[in-house]
Amino acid sequence: MTRDNRTPVTVIGLGSMGRALAAAFIAAGHSTTVWNRTPAKAAALVAKGAVQAGSVGTAVEASPLVITCLTTFEDTRTALEPAAAALSGRALVTLNSGSPADARAMADWATGRGARFLAGAVKNVPAAVGAPDTLLYYGGDKTVFDEYETALKALGGDTVHLGDETDLAALYEMAVGAMLLPALVGFFQGAAAVQARGLEAGSMVRFAGKWLDMIKSLLPVYAEEIDSGDYTDDASSVNLFLAGVAHDRDLTEETNVDTAWLAPLHELLKRAAAVGHGDHSVSALTEVLRNSAQKA
Amino acid sequence: MTRDNRTPVTVIGLGSMGRALAAAFIAAGHSTTVWNRTPAKAAALVAKGAVQAGSVGTAVEASPLVITCLTTFEDTRTALEPAAAALSGRALVTLNSGSPADARAMADWATGRGARFLAGAVKNVPAAVGAPDTLLYYGGDKTVFDEYETALKALGGDTVHLGDETDLAALYEMAVGAMLLPALVGFFQGAAAVQARGLEAGSMVRFAGKWLDMIKSLLPVYAEEIDSGDYTDDASSVNLFLAGVAHDRDLTEETNVDTAWLAPLHELLKRAAAVGHGDHSVSALTEVLRNSAQKA
Repeated sequence: MTRDNRTPVTVIGLGSMGRALAAAFIAAGHSTTVWNRTPAKAAALVAKGAVQAGSVGTAVEASPLVITCLTTFEDTRTALEPAAAALSGRALVTLNSGSPADARAMADWATGRGARFLAGAVKNVPAAVGAPDTLLYYGGDKTVFDEYETALKALGGDTVHLGDETDLAALYEMAVGAMLLPALVGFFQGAAAVQARGLEAGSMVRFAGKWLDMIKSLLPVYAEEIDSGDYTDDASSVNLFLAGVAHDRDLTEETNVDTAWLAPLHELLKRAAAVGHGDHSVSALTEVLRNSAQKA
Repeated sequence: MTRDNRTPVTVIGLGSMGRALAAAFIAAGHSTTVWNRTPAKAAALVAKGAVQAGSVGTAVEASPLVITCLTTFEDTRTALEPAAAALSGRALVTLNSGSPADARAMADWATGRGARFLAGAVKNVPAAVGAPDTLLYYGGDKTVFDEYETALKALGGDTVHLGDETDLAALYEMAVGAMLLPALVGFFQGAAAVQARGLEAGSMVRFAGKWLDMIKSLLPVYAEEIDSGDYTDDASSVNLFLAGVAHDRDLTEETNVDTAWLAPLHELLKRAAAVGHGDHSVSALTEVLRNSAQKA
């Protein structure tokens, strides 16, 4: 059974992301109940038509579908504990970061209280919540996903059920998210470098954006190499990247920007070359990342 | 004066990128002369209509516009040395990686031999050469860029003159390129993590692609913070990223994948927090990268 898009929804946790989630439900016409430990965070949502619950228990009781958006799974359990009795029979959907192990612990807690449980993640910024292209993915009870898919799509049109295991969103969150900080620090290093030359960081934004498009175009190629274990394509080889290492030193000399954070990446390249991947695709670094952990 | 798109062109250096450049000129209707130290690399281009020069001197003499695509600036000078006398009055355009200092040395060499000089970079893979959206940027003699812009656009429709300084493409190349290896290693780490769970790396490609789109959407915001020096927006703060550090350890425990390469990034976050940027935007790491080098 698919509910219509007017399913009453409760949103617990009204940080910037939680507020964006609640606003998207309101905009899509859902009767939306909200709760936050600091009640003042709800004011703008109430002005838009949300009902502010006086307690977390009242909030949970208000809707068959309860969405939490707190910082960690532990925060989520702490917030829900007073409402534990009310969870029985309801669909609980968590949207926060955390490890797969934490997601499994949360699932045990939720199902132990009779809730039907999905753990998901919003793969975008609060401002993108509600857009047709915004990605959210979920792992856990497929019947919850199927029943409330229309409501969940109010948060982003690209809504995916990864599988029945409750820790899959957390796993993909860590796997996919691993590009973020390293890519950003690369951008910040570049920004410091152009600024050292008296140019604006803004002058590299368009170029950096196209560079990210180029990196995106490489991902299916590398994934296929990694899944097949065939790294023999040498178009962007480990040795080619090793040859580029000297440029990092040049950048430091030229612009006085710290590139020391790249040293472990250079070490990974050297280790890959040392075990015979020099003329192989740079995606062979996957084997080094896997093997080093096994050796450690 | 703008030449028409039939300017005779010479391409020197026929690795995978050089061959793609020559093929794009041929496809656009240019009389195209090619030369490579290993002559056999030219065979497929000759079949498409290129003229293979018997010496680098003959190659240079064949066209007013000479494009080189060798690995380094030093390789470029070595290859061109026998043709130095023929360079006078011609437009020489280098497309290779190298440091700003190397680009300046190359410019001195080229102008010392009477060539008009542009140093550029192709911001994409060989397969993208010739596409309307492919970016190439150049620094150096603006009259060369203006005169041959139509011809240069045969290599990619998004063709930009960065300024008169001959090392600007090298500078931007290092600045923009700094995201590549870190982002890829993040992806490889993620691939190893999902594989440790028995899932295919290919299963994360679509999600990782959207994640890169999200990162791209952040760049103008961060660039503005960096250029203004106003890091007070705490939507994605240093402390928020520090809270995520624990997840990297969780990933190692969960999947046995090596995340040690991230340690210097965590140190950068800690240093940023220590100097008061904890509740500031993560783009404040730019200041730490700049300041650490100044202290070193």
